Amino acid sequence: MRNGGTARNLAGKVAQHVNGDRLWDRLMVLSGFGATERGGVNRQALSDEEIAARAQLMRWAEVIGLEPSVDALANLFLRYKGTDPALPAVLIGSHIDSQPSGGKFDGAFGVLAALEAVEAITACGVRPRRNIEVVSWTNEEASRFAPGMTGSAGFCGVRQLDEILRIRDQTGIAVETALHKVLSAESRISRRPLGAKPAAFVEAHIEQGPILELEGKTIGIVTGIQGKRTFRIEVAGEENHAGTSPRGVRRDALVSAVDIVRALHEALWDDEDVVRLTVGMFNVSPNVPSVVPARVVFSLDLRHPDAARLRQLGDAIGEVCRNASGRCAVAVHELLHDPPLEFPLAIRQTIRSAATALQVSCMDIPSGAGHDARHLHYVCPTGMIFIPCKGGISHNEAESILEHHATDGARVLAEVAFALADAD
Amino acid sequence: MRNGGTARNLAGKVAQHVNGDRLWDRLMVLSGFGATERGGVNRQALSDEEIAARAQLMRWAEVIGLEPSVDALANLFLRYKGTDPALPAVLIGSHIDSQPSGGKFDGAFGVLAALEAVEAITACGVRPRRNIEVVSWTNEEASRFAPGMTGSAGFCGVRQLDEILRIRDQTGIAVETALHKVLSAESRISRRPLGAKPAAFVEAHIEQGPILELEGKTIGIVTGIQGKRTFRIEVAGEENHAGTSPRGVRRDALVSAVDIVRALHEALWDDEDVVRLTVGMFNVSPNVPSVVPARVVFSLDLRHPDAARLRQLGDAIGEVCRNASGRCAVAVHELLHDPPLEFPLAIRQTIRSAATALQVSCMDIPSGAGHDARHLHYVCPTGMIFIPCKGGISHNEAESILEHHATDGARVLAEVAFALADAD
Repeated sequence: MRNGGTARNLAGKVAQHVNGDRLWDRLMVLSGFGATERGGVNRQALSDEEIAARAQLMRWAEVIGLEPSVDALANLFLRYKGTDPALPAVLIGSHIDSQPSGGKFDGAFGVLAALEAVEAITACGVRPRRNIEVVSWTNEEASRFAPGMTGSAGFCGVRQLDEILRIRDQTGIAVETALHKVLSAESRISRRPLGAKPAAFVEAHIEQGPILELEGKTIGIVTGIQGKRTFRIEVAGEENHAGTSPRGVRRDALVSAVDIVRALHEALWDDEDVVRLTVGMFNVSPNVPSVVPARVVFSLDLRHPDAARLRQLGDAIGEVCRNASGRCAVAVHELLHDPPLEFPLAIRQTIRSAATALQVSCMDIPSGAGHDARHLHYVCPTGMIFIPCKGGISHNEAESILEHHATDGARVLAEVAFALADAD
Repeated sequence: MRNGGTARNLAGKVAQHVNGDRLWDRLMVLSGFGATERGGVNRQALSDEEIAARAQLMRWAEVIGLEPSVDALANLFLRYKGTDPALPAVLIGSHIDSQPSGGKFDGAFGVLAALEAVEAITACGVRPRRNIEVVSWTNEEASRFAPGMTGSAGFCGVRQLDEILRIRDQTGIAVETALHKVLSAESRISRRPLGAKPAAFVEAHIEQGPILELEGKTIGIVTGIQGKRTFRIEVAGEENHAGTSPRGVRRDALVSAVDIVRALHEALWDDEDVVRLTVGMFNVSPNVPSVVPARVVFSLDLRHPDAARLRQLGDAIGEVCRNASGRCAVAVHELLHDPPLEFPLAIRQTIRSAATALQVSCMDIPSGAGHDARHLHYVCPTGMIFIPCKGGISHNEAESILEHHATDGARVLAEVAFALADAD
């Protein structure tokens, strides 16, 4: 596909076949796998819940006539054949793993909108030139296995397979072990080699922020993804008795960690409120009431849209930690440094044209969250379509979207997927 | 027994039968139950490791001819019969549960020194008037089931059985369930009613502080136990996405919790370094790197030797927490308020006389740590005997004592136990 290549103009015929009720029903069915009492989803990467949800995806795909395949990282592909299947495929999709107390739509919307888009294309009567593959990437969320986005990272060669297989969850289970369970459960599905150079990748996703809702727009044409650096910070003190050891002799890892977190928030403060700084994980050892903590390990997630500022802020972290560590030792390990990126204008224009033709309101919007599209961006023309979510709330069981937004998102995606797959 | 009642003077004959090698061997054998790689012990209350260690205690007791019995809280008693078994018994002992990364001697020394003392008394040829019972109290440490000292609390009527049975560990297992497992494993052991009014209780223990070592003394005659208040503090914010939610809209429970811990340390600071303030447990939800924490629950352990000061400091905690909680809600629950206590002079004098007669160096010393002796103090004349531990290090796998200190501790305990059991 040449960027901006011309597809047959079906004048919205593909989008007409998008069935909003069907899409919504599937969203509700999928949210049953790992459903939580408070209306959210706990369907962590490579869990039994995800295995069951993947089986459901394949049952739907089978009815549509899509061919499933999996790779060594359990990325799941559901292929609709084009008229020239030797050409690189257009990939559309997202992920279906969730945070431990996540919502129904993060990731799942992108995969099911892609399934709906393909079903609409199969129904429109015109088969595009290229294959279209609905993809569900493995372990986007990083809640069980950190860092996340390992499925797309392995697919795109950003991380090596060996390195990914060794990652362990908090209970000590390695990705390799968890993957083995998933791939065994899917042993009858065709295996494909890891990696490829797709014709394009488009990911639909909920915004996970408040902007589209505030602006009253249905479609966000994502301009790019802000940069992100993540760290693991280890504070080492000495275990002692809470009743007998005077403050003067203590090396209390929790006291030092608290001072470090406070110092980081002060040092990285910006009046503009653009810096995103989060300590999301914080583990204390031995973590019992009457023992002075010997060790604290915590995560630091730092994001910024400007590459130079992100570099500068992240590079300052080590010194801030050391200066605030008091009597304890501190070690700072950087896990990831993804610079900000901008999606190509051609894909953004394809999305804009589709939304405009369908008379669906749209606007440009940056992504604050990371997505698998980050990795695909470096191997093929990539774009993202956002739809609003209520109050910007995400990574939360209360995550909520409107049905007509979901439908319009799938309609735009269907048009975009057809245009990209059918282009010269 | 009248306080200061007279026992037959055997002129150190009991202590002569204390076998330091045997005591040390038993300490090493017992430390094998729950042994950790780094030389410590993980033998938490009512665990399989503790069940196995209790079985070992009973095997030793059987050889000596002691009669085992257990009560509804799995407090374990090993009885040596006196010449007048209808009289209230003298209890000597401590506990054998440990912190998850505890040492070999905390608690275990007190139980095995008591066993050695009774064995020496059986060997000395003079049977005392009263029964002597070696006791191992259940769940002293509070690391698995908080609050701790539940065995002695239930025995002394400080807490009701029902209330204790409902306490749950971090995995949701109730004391009732864990107890059932222990009592089933010991179904052939004689059951005794919960509670009694002993003639006296003496607990030998490692100091868990540096004073005896610094002063070059072998025996600490414990004057009393400092007061303790414990709290559970819950900080509630809102879960959100680390990449998309601006600082200005976040209700980050970890940020508030960090500010609260900082504020508590500032508000409760004393130049004299007498206040003991420890945040030992700190649990974050959902505790994943890319989610703004919705909830933090942490423990606060506050101790002071002065009753009025302890009351004043503890009463200030609620306001300090609320003032520092920022955008989050905070709730403060007090779990325990034990005022400082002083052991009776008569028991302290009995210990001093025994040490002096045996020419073992001794000094008065307050206890910074809480012990089961706290609860017994309110139902019978109670005292404690400390021996030094290296560097004052305790609740730590590196906990260490000298063999000759252990021997001298058991020698003094044997003389004290005989004197109390044989008194008019």
